Amino acid sequence: MNNNLVDDRLREECGVFGVLGHTDSAQLTVLGLHALQHRGQEAVGIVTFDGTKFQSEKRLGLVGDNFTKQPIIEKLSGISAIGHVRYSTRGETILRNVQPLYADLDTGGFTVGHNGNLTNTLLLREKLVSSGAIFQSTSDTEVILHLVAKSKKLKFIDKFIDAIGYLEGAYALVALTNKKLIGARDPLGIRPLVLGKLDKSYILASETCALDIIGAEFIREVENGEIIVITDDGIESHYPFPKQSPRPCIFEYIYFAMPHSVIGGRSVYEIRKQLGYELSKEDNVKAEIVVPVPDSGVPAALGYSEGSKINFDYGLIRNHYVGRTFIEPTQNIRQFGVRLKHSANVQMVKNKSVVLLDDSLVRGTTSVKIVRMLFESGAKEVHLRIASPPIKYSDYYGIDTPEKDSLLAAKHNMDEMRDYIGCTSLKFLSIGGLYRALGYSERNNEMPQFTDHCFTGDYPTKLSDIEQIPDHTSQLSLLEE
Amino acid sequence: MNNNLVDDRLREECGVFGVLGHTDSAQLTVLGLHALQHRGQEAVGIVTFDGTKFQSEKRLGLVGDNFTKQPIIEKLSGISAIGHVRYSTRGETILRNVQPLYADLDTGGFTVGHNGNLTNTLLLREKLVSSGAIFQSTSDTEVILHLVAKSKKLKFIDKFIDAIGYLEGAYALVALTNKKLIGARDPLGIRPLVLGKLDKSYILASETCALDIIGAEFIREVENGEIIVITDDGIESHYPFPKQSPRPCIFEYIYFAMPHSVIGGRSVYEIRKQLGYELSKEDNVKAEIVVPVPDSGVPAALGYSEGSKINFDYGLIRNHYVGRTFIEPTQNIRQFGVRLKHSANVQMVKNKSVVLLDDSLVRGTTSVKIVRMLFESGAKEVHLRIASPPIKYSDYYGIDTPEKDSLLAAKHNMDEMRDYIGCTSLKFLSIGGLYRALGYSERNNEMPQFTDHCFTGDYPTKLSDIEQIPDHTSQLSLLEE
Amino acid sequence: MNNNLVDDRLREECGVFGVLGHTDSAQLTVLGLHALQHRGQEAVGIVTFDGTKFQSEKRLGLVGDNFTKQPIIEKLSGISAIGHVRYSTRGETILRNVQPLYADLDTGGFTVGHNGNLTNTLLLREKLVSSGAIFQSTSDTEVILHLVAKSKKLKFIDKFIDAIGYLEGAYALVALTNKKLIGARDPLGIRPLVLGKLDKSYILASETCALDIIGAEFIREVENGEIIVITDDGIESHYPFPKQSPRPCIFEYIYFAMPHSVIGGRSVYEIRKQLGYELSKEDNVKAEIVVPVPDSGVPAALGYSEGSKINFDYGLIRNHYVGRTFIEPTQNIRQFGVRLKHSANVQMVKNKSVVLLDDSLVRGTTSVKIVRMLFESGAKEVHLRIASPPIKYSDYYGIDTPEKDSLLAAKHNMDEMRDYIGCTSLKFLSIGGLYRALGYSERNNEMPQFTDHCFTGDYPTKLSDIEQIPDHTSQLSLLEE
Amino acid sequence: MNNNLVDDRLREECGVFGVLGHTDSAQLTVLGLHALQHRGQEAVGIVTFDGTKFQSEKRLGLVGDNFTKQPIIEKLSGISAIGHVRYSTRGETILRNVQPLYADLDTGGFTVGHNGNLTNTLLLREKLVSSGAIFQSTSDTEVILHLVAKSKKLKFIDKFIDAIGYLEGAYALVALTNKKLIGARDPLGIRPLVLGKLDKSYILASETCALDIIGAEFIREVENGEIIVITDDGIESHYPFPKQSPRPCIFEYIYFAMPHSVIGGRSVYEIRKQLGYELSKEDNVKAEIVVPVPDSGVPAALGYSEGSKINFDYGLIRNHYVGRTFIEPTQNIRQFGVRLKHSANVQMVKNKSVVLLDDSLVRGTTSVKIVRMLFESGAKEVHLRIASPPIKYSDYYGIDTPEKDSLLAAKHNMDEMRDYIGCTSLKFLSIGGLYRALGYSERNNEMPQFTDHCFTGDYPTKLSDIEQIPDHTSQLSLLEE
Repeated sequence: MNNNLVDDRLREECGVFGVLGHTDSAQLTVLGLHALQHRGQEAVGIVTFDGTKFQSEKRLGLVGDNFTKQPIIEKLSGISAIGHVRYSTRGETILRNVQPLYADLDTGGFTVGHNGNLTNTLLLREKLVSSGAIFQSTSDTEVILHLVAKSKKLKFIDKFIDAIGYLEGAYALVALTNKKLIGARDPLGIRPLVLGKLDKSYILASETCALDIIGAEFIREVENGEIIVITDDGIESHYPFPKQSPRPCIFEYIYFAMPHSVIGGRSVYEIRKQLGYELSKEDNVKAEIVVPVPDSGVPAALGYSEGSKINFDYGLIRNHYVGRTFIEPTQNIRQFGVRLKHSANVQMVKNKSVVLLDDSLVRGTTSVKIVRMLFESGAKEVHLRIASPPIKYSDYYGIDTPEKDSLLAAKHNMDEMRDYIGCTSLKFLSIGGLYRALGYSERNNEMPQFTDHCFTGDYPTKLSDIEQIPDHTSQLSLLEE
Repeated sequence: MNNNLVDDRLREECGVFGVLGHTDSAQLTVLGLHALQHRGQEAVGIVTFDGTKFQSEKRLGLVGDNFTKQPIIEKLSGISAIGHVRYSTRGETILRNVQPLYADLDTGGFTVGHNGNLTNTLLLREKLVSSGAIFQSTSDTEVILHLVAKSKKLKFIDKFIDAIGYLEGAYALVALTNKKLIGARDPLGIRPLVLGKLDKSYILASETCALDIIGAEFIREVENGEIIVITDDGIESHYPFPKQSPRPCIFEYIYFAMPHSVIGGRSVYEIRKQLGYELSKEDNVKAEIVVPVPDSGVPAALGYSEGSKINFDYGLIRNHYVGRTFIEPTQNIRQFGVRLKHSANVQMVKNKSVVLLDDSLVRGTTSVKIVRMLFESGAKEVHLRIASPPIKYSDYYGIDTPEKDSLLAAKHNMDEMRDYIGCTSLKFLSIGGLYRALGYSERNNEMPQFTDHCFTGDYPTKLSDIEQIPDHTSQLSLLEE
Repeated sequence: MNNNLVDDRLREECGVFGVLGHTDSAQLTVLGLHALQHRGQEAVGIVTFDGTKFQSEKRLGLVGDNFTKQPIIEKLSGISAIGHVRYSTRGETILRNVQPLYADLDTGGFTVGHNGNLTNTLLLREKLVSSGAIFQSTSDTEVILHLVAKSKKLKFIDKFIDAIGYLEGAYALVALTNKKLIGARDPLGIRPLVLGKLDKSYILASETCALDIIGAEFIREVENGEIIVITDDGIESHYPFPKQSPRPCIFEYIYFAMPHSVIGGRSVYEIRKQLGYELSKEDNVKAEIVVPVPDSGVPAALGYSEGSKINFDYGLIRNHYVGRTFIEPTQNIRQFGVRLKHSANVQMVKNKSVVLLDDSLVRGTTSVKIVRMLFESGAKEVHLRIASPPIKYSDYYGIDTPEKDSLLAAKHNMDEMRDYIGCTSLKFLSIGGLYRALGYSERNNEMPQFTDHCFTGDYPTKLSDIEQIPDHTSQLSLLEE
Repeated sequence: MNNNLVDDRLREECGVFGVLGHTDSAQLTVLGLHALQHRGQEAVGIVTFDGTKFQSEKRLGLVGDNFTKQPIIEKLSGISAIGHVRYSTRGETILRNVQPLYADLDTGGFTVGHNGNLTNTLLLREKLVSSGAIFQSTSDTEVILHLVAKSKKLKFIDKFIDAIGYLEGAYALVALTNKKLIGARDPLGIRPLVLGKLDKSYILASETCALDIIGAEFIREVENGEIIVITDDGIESHYPFPKQSPRPCIFEYIYFAMPHSVIGGRSVYEIRKQLGYELSKEDNVKAEIVVPVPDSGVPAALGYSEGSKINFDYGLIRNHYVGRTFIEPTQNIRQFGVRLKHSANVQMVKNKSVVLLDDSLVRGTTSVKIVRMLFESGAKEVHLRIASPPIKYSDYYGIDTPEKDSLLAAKHNMDEMRDYIGCTSLKFLSIGGLYRALGYSERNNEMPQFTDHCFTGDYPTKLSDIEQIPDHTSQLSLLEE
């Protein structure tokens, strides 16, 4: 579940999109997934239904590199479609794990895409295999397929609700049958899902930016614990779980979502500026320039500049052509301090005292490099400011966090972190500041407004696999690919 | 099941190979499948077991084009392996249908490769889906996986025998678990399977030519209805079916097997010469030269020449570089009589009366072209002789035959066929001659010595799917790929 | 020479890099070209010399997609290397046109890479072909190879100087022989070239950002009209042309160069801020927010914001996953206003009066879309401001400009442009403001400080091909590829 | 020039084809080259002329694998075309060496394909480079392009004749300009070239089999020393060399040409049967079966069987799926005697005394394996018979022979060869028998009827490069690819 991070970032594991009843369903899905590309860059899949058959195309890589040719769009015929973009570490990104997954049920075809992560996958998988189920992937999403297939209920929607009842953890699902487009969010609404409308067709998507790209109207968010069933006759909602307050993932605001997306009625861009603003109010450093780590640190740096009255400028330039598998320089080259991803804008930082703004701090390896580069470029002081609290706990709900031991803040105090990074001073936004930026006076510790365990250790659900299974590998696939 | 034939040939659908306990198991399997390549040119798969994990590689195309690189051999680590070559029409050749298929059972990993065709696939599939099974391919072999997974027996081998008991039709299986290499033939032994030994390792293969290529010793054929279980401790056989006489497929002798293979103790090459010899004895045509359709008609032509005392010569030359997807000439080029696959050896046939020998006649389209080419090259007479009886019935046991309506002999009498082909005269080997060539005085109509329904309509097993299912498509996959 | 622009941008045609005497020469060249990727994204080539043989690798696509694997780096062995990135329209991007070009001369191997464009290519090519030269590309750089090969001089460097003497137009060259790394700039220094040093090895590169990425020290610019010859013994300079003032291309400051590059002693980033600042001083619009067209309009927008005291904010979000061949939406989707490259940050622009900042205006097609998107997002007013003067003339020195008729400012007055684009008001930076931003009180019309004909029509060299050749195609290659 | 042989065969280096004035010129060329595929399997090239531009497509690999798709045929538009198939060892097979080669001359485009090998390439190349020519390939054919380009003659055909005059060695050329299709054979006619006609269009091809495949009529052979110029107005011939007797390469009959081709009025198939027949008359071995090494030894074996009255049978079976880069078995597998290319037909050879017929003997490595395989299969005696004389000398005219030291017969006497191969007895056809099979009473030693230096050491032309150049590498390309 946890993987090494190539570039010291948290990564969202997925984005989903679905549309029913539009003659350009495949093309709309391609565009929607393109807008959600930041949620998963490793693989893309689209399944359409043409009235008789389902068509599926899955590819490793980006939407724009794989779904641009006319033949692939023509192959994906039909007026309903769902799609999925996926992030995963290399070892596991094989085509049979790429979603949407598909099954022929006795009620007809059924396909599903999943954003999030279940916390009782292994227990469910073990039971299913014992009863004769054959798994074809290591994706935890396949558990959902088998639970639906095994359900003794007669109607499809009852099978689906029956299956969902077994799941623990986080999920935002889009699913498609020969008649229905279905959306579902877990009881706490940890992962996002929104409902939109284009012309007369309903759309489901992880973020509003996927509605914007196709000019669709935003209707509302799918609610926590809601199962929304869209057919030609309209929308019908099921609420199979006990009612409770939503608790969405706070990282959507801090890092994952596109800045122009709107979540929970809040502009992500404005929240990020506000995070920087709150941070400036908790700070009193003297400096001459506020420099963002581009691009993700830019809004917070603008907010910090506004709050601190220190000038904002681009002291770091991002190389837009960095691919994900760039050449690994040899040791004798690396010593010269190779700068592949970011370059210092030397003329702007030379002889200056710099406030360096980043959105979050994971392992700190990138910060080490950037701070060193700024000093080598002549900066007098580098004050690293992080527009969120220290990350001390791993995630199990669909964010790819490193092992707890690799989280810099999990094992080190502030002084150790500052020394490791090599900056003049280091400061994080407080939990209080975080909640203030989001519009609350404080965190409700009884019933927290957000899923924020990475900062607090306060996990919102049971973690059955972690707690109960001594040897997790016993039911993983023995087929290596 | 029946498909258009690209080049007017019957096609075997598969070849299988397995080895247990050899340090070069992957490489032996590559070589063995290369020797069995004539049994399937569309796709290849190999699964190995390395003591902990199973490795699988599946590719569309030829063994020699796909399994020659060191990295792929190194990836297929382990000391046991099974492999499969497959023929299938294009529409269905997708990687998820390529064998061996694999499942994680609660007893561990299990993988199987299948030569043959079941005749109750659809009935079994319908039942399995109703009970919650999710099929990932349209291959009838997947039914076997699910039957094993669902079996309530506790020991693996009991699950396997339990599953086999549900099957109707033809099968020669090789299967592999973490301890066992298993071979199985259907109760009539329709498809071939032999046991060999190399050093201390046992080998299973469709034909003896796959033992020859690696220098392995031929031990014996796996018997009809036998399940042979090979472990480090040796060989153990199970006979779960009532004892009966074998009834192997007669087309292995006529066309499918390699000429140097030995089946049922008979040299295939010698049988083919004998088919030509018997045909010459039923014939009395006057001619100056016996010309084979190369390469498959050569042994029969040599036998015919020996029997008739008419000189054998290569009047047709085969182009060895013909691929399977050659350029389709435009109409205005085609009119010149393009000769892609065979060329006339004009100097040999000009002004001669020719006996043209072929092994079998399916739709007759190739014969039309060859006969016309011989006449255009100056042949005075072309007497077409077929070294087997007329094919009047479709196969359902793993031979890819066209729809019955496309079989030339199913709908036309001898005169019509001769006129269609345009030859001077046309003659087939009789059923009596066929059995004489195989060493019998006559066909035992009560208990035929061979599976020969393509000539006789006498099918050896029930054809449940054909007889009982009105709409076959209901349980096929709705996922088009 | 002029081509349709896919995305309404001017494009630099090339970047060059060279290194002599470093054990990691290939890897340094890969990194340097990666830093110069913005100067050409269509193709990359690297040639190295290993003491005996030259190695060459040329690929269509990006550096990071093509030169990341160890085998390709190992193949490019040697301690000297030159490399080239290239932009070109599709029809002409074939591998044989990709630079560096190579020739076996009787003095040994010779390879050259060229940034810029000659204005007498066709005349030279015609003469060379008449004397028996065989051209293998349509690249004007091949003319240089043939001129060197044909030179009657005995020493290589004399041949090179002899050849350069025939050229008109713009060129920054890097060349490599078995002993020498050579750099050369045209008499006016239109295209940039800098000299750096890493450890004991000299480096040549189009921009300082290519020195920064490898941690090399910037020494100086290669001067206009200078031929710099680097050997193991050090540096030697030749000045074969009459001395004159330099006249570098002004577009390097406005758009082409990386913001952190330093050209002519000036920080490109600061110049761009200054362009915005000067523009704000020529302006008096009332507005609530300054929004850049990201990323190229950002520095100018920051400068404009500083000068005008109007708040800077990201009202447009750039999609970082836009590839160069994205899906072309069908008409019925396009009507919804698809936003592939930029999205509006609706919450920031709604109900606001917006100053929209862009660096330059070419055909105006992108501006039309962005302005419309801002209005659709609720902007009250959109005041488009361009931080450079109107482009009225085509370039012939290595910038890919559209046909003059396609330049919006060449055929329309200010009101027509504003109406076409649909903005509330439109304003360009004046020529005076442009030169003030660059640190001059005014343009020296007698002897202009920069190559600025795109704004002024004042071409710095003869345009022999344009003026003298009636039918340009007669000496282009008749071989279409 | 000489290369290691992968599989112990002599290899023809090329085949050529050309057509003028046919609307399907590209497709005819594809078919013609497919029929000539046996003359070169490493690379294919086709150049067409559409009235304005030349189109070129070059690919490594087989015709049928590379020129089957409609887009490539459509791209090769035009009504005239030439094509080339090439054999070359791996190191040198790079696309820029693949023919036809092309040049823009001042008289227009010119493209040429060459079968054969020049013996003064290096001398000519040295002179051309000194005068400023830039070579883009290491192909000796490029010398011809430069000689034509440098010619001071005014008319194209005079330039061509001028250029041809400098050449020594063997060549059969097809060339194309915007008006002319040209064929040329060296003064001795060493390599073959025939003229055909299809409808109203003339065809040039290496062998008649390329006429047969498209249904074209054979007109005549191009004569030795003839330059044939085909235009819309018809055919015109030039004879620039002193008249002499032809001296065609004898290996076309023995091994290279397709059996159904006709060369010098003789059926290749019948000549090969006759070679076996003559050999049988020089032999008196007692044996029970004549076995050919398939496929090339088959006609000789039929002739030997006819002459000796010993039965012909297939004692060896060829695997038709052998690719050119098959898996190299590890040593521990190789010891079992892996049989990739040929298999013994054990039932036919067991306990028999075998006459094994092959067409020629080069290094003997394959013979060693086959003889051992026959003995391992139970053969009592194996009498190897070679239907041509011992090869003692290397070729320099376009046949890929190994270094002289690797030719078994160059260094060993009959007893040594027999012992090395391990056969019971060994016998070659005599020079006298060879000429008798070809219809002559004896070899004319004053003026030999054929180019036969591989057997006799009697080279038909000067070998200038071999004799005069001490260091051949000085003018080879320094650019490694």
